[in-house]
This record gives sequence, C-alpha cells and structure tokens, in this order.
Amino acid sequence: MRQSDFWITKNTISIESVVEKVVRPKAGAIDTFIGTVREFTKGKRTLFLEYQAYVPMAEKKLTQIGTEIKQQWPDAKTAIVHRIGHLDITDIAVVIAVSTPHRADAFEACRYAIERIKEIVPIWKKEHWEDGTMWIGDQKEQQTYPGGKPSEEDLT
Amino acid sequence: MRQSDFWITKNTISIESVVEKVVRPKAGAIDTFIGTVREFTKGKRTLFLEYQAYVPMAEKKLTQIGTEIKQQWPDAKTAIVHRIGHLDITDIAVVIAVSTPHRADAFEACRYAIERIKEIVPIWKKEHWEDGTMWIGDQKEQQTYPGGKPSEEDLT
Repeated sequence: MRQSDFWITKNTISIESVVEKVVRPKAGAIDTFIGTVREFTKGKRTLFLEYQAYVPMAEKKLTQIGTEIKQQWPDAKTAIVHRIGHLDITDIAVVIAVSTPHRADAFEACRYAIERIKEIVPIWKKEHWEDGTMWIGDQKEQQTYPGGKPSEEDLT
Repeated sequence: MRQSDFWITKNTISIESVVEKVVRPKAGAIDTFIGTVREFTKGKRTLFLEYQAYVPMAEKKLTQIGTEIKQQWPDAKTAIVHRIGHLDITDIAVVIAVSTPHRADAFEACRYAIERIKEIVPIWKKEHWEDGTMWIGDQKEQQTYPGGKPSEEDLT
C-alpha cells in the first residue's frame, strides 16, 4: 500500500484505495468527494481535459490540507488523491475521503478539503473544447493563462 | 448490473458499484456517505452488529428518499445501498452516492439522504456488547425494543 495519504497520480483512481486509508474502528462515518470531468460548462462542450501539476508542491499542499483538517477536527482522518494527465468525460480527477466518529464532522471536513484544494494546490487544467483549448490557471477558475500554464514564479 | 438504484443487501458493499450508478457526463461532483461499524459508542465497546430490515418496505423508503432528493435538487442522481445481517467493526453498513453538476448540491443532498434514512427506513440493529445485547429500534436510536425488534404494526 502507498505510504502517504496525499498523492498525485497519472493513473485511474480507485475510490476504494482512498477510502481504505481512512477506515478505522473509531470512525462511524466517512464522507468522500469525487470530482469527475463534466461535459458541459456554461453551455460549452468539453471534449477532454489535461491536468498538470507541480507535483512535489501539489503533494505538499494536499498534505497541508490534511494537517489543517486535523487542527479543526482532531478526530478526523483524511486521504486525498488527484489525477493528472489526459482525462476523458466522466473520468475521476480527484477523490477525498474523511472519516470521523460522527457524520456531521465528516461532511464538514470533506467540504473544507475540496474548497482548499481549489484555493492552494498548484494543479492546472487545459480545457479542450470543440473550437479550441485554454489553460485554466487557478482551480477557482478566476484566472486564465492564455499563453500557457503558470510559471513557477506564479506559485510563490 | 443491478436494475434498481436503491437496494438492501446481505453482501459486502462495493463502493464503486454504488458510485458507478450516478456517474454521468453532466455531473462534475459526486458526494458519497459511507457508514461503518464503530467500535465504541458512549464508552461502550461493540463486538459486532446485526442489522435486520423489513426489506420490501426498506427498499421502498430508500427509493422515496431518491424521489425527495430529485424534487429538491432536480439535477441530482442518487443511489443508496444498505447492508443487513452480521457486520463486524469497520464493515460498511450503508453507502449513499449523489452526483450533481456542481459540488454544493452534492454535499447537501447526500447529507439529506443519510438523515432521512435514519428517520424513515425500517432497519434495526442489534448491538452485541461485551456484557449483553440490545435491539436498537429506530435508527435515530431514540427508541429501544428490549423484547426484540419491532413488530410490523410498529412500522405503520
């Protein structure tokens, strides 16, 4: 089994492999968030996506999110994996699993995790539409990089 | 593949088998809730659990929850499976998966589903502790049946 609970992969994500990292006797609740590639965004049809990450920094930031969750929900255990490379419609891009003794915390912490991923993890996606392509900069999609993905300077 | 999206099973639940029922091109977000058997509840150690259901009614009520979600979140698709029989610590008792175009709805609808399961679905559990057993009546655990599980009259 993979040693870290926070990782980037080029391969198909197995949901079970993420969930099994957080199953434990003291937890009665696991919430998972699964992000999949959606075909239509604002009426525009996506053919496929390409994700790239600055991998060491991305894994460090995913790990940081786990630490943040532990601070706010001390009984929680978290695992997160994000896929990079070519993804087709309905492919799984990200899986988050959070286990807690009781369910309210699992839902809240998992929601926190996906919001933080979109805020701080350096992963970009290139949208391939029927009529062109575009690198989407930050994951909140508030910034685009028409000339390509951000440079390492943009990460600091 | 199983035809219904709402079912009771005596077998180990595969999370992927539930999620695959809600994956679709228009959804970018899937939230799943996984309920597992917790070892300690209020300081008391559980050895294992036994779930029983009034199966036709339980499946009908799970289906009803899917309908209620569709009314409140028209773009959502839901699948729910609950296991019955003997479950050991960390075994999965229930899996809910809800897919929606955007993530806020997936979290809300999934949370709604688990609350409704505990309110309306006729499934009882028998706690096996180190020093005895007890049938827990309703899933909110506000009612016990010291003489055994409820009769069918209790269901109406």
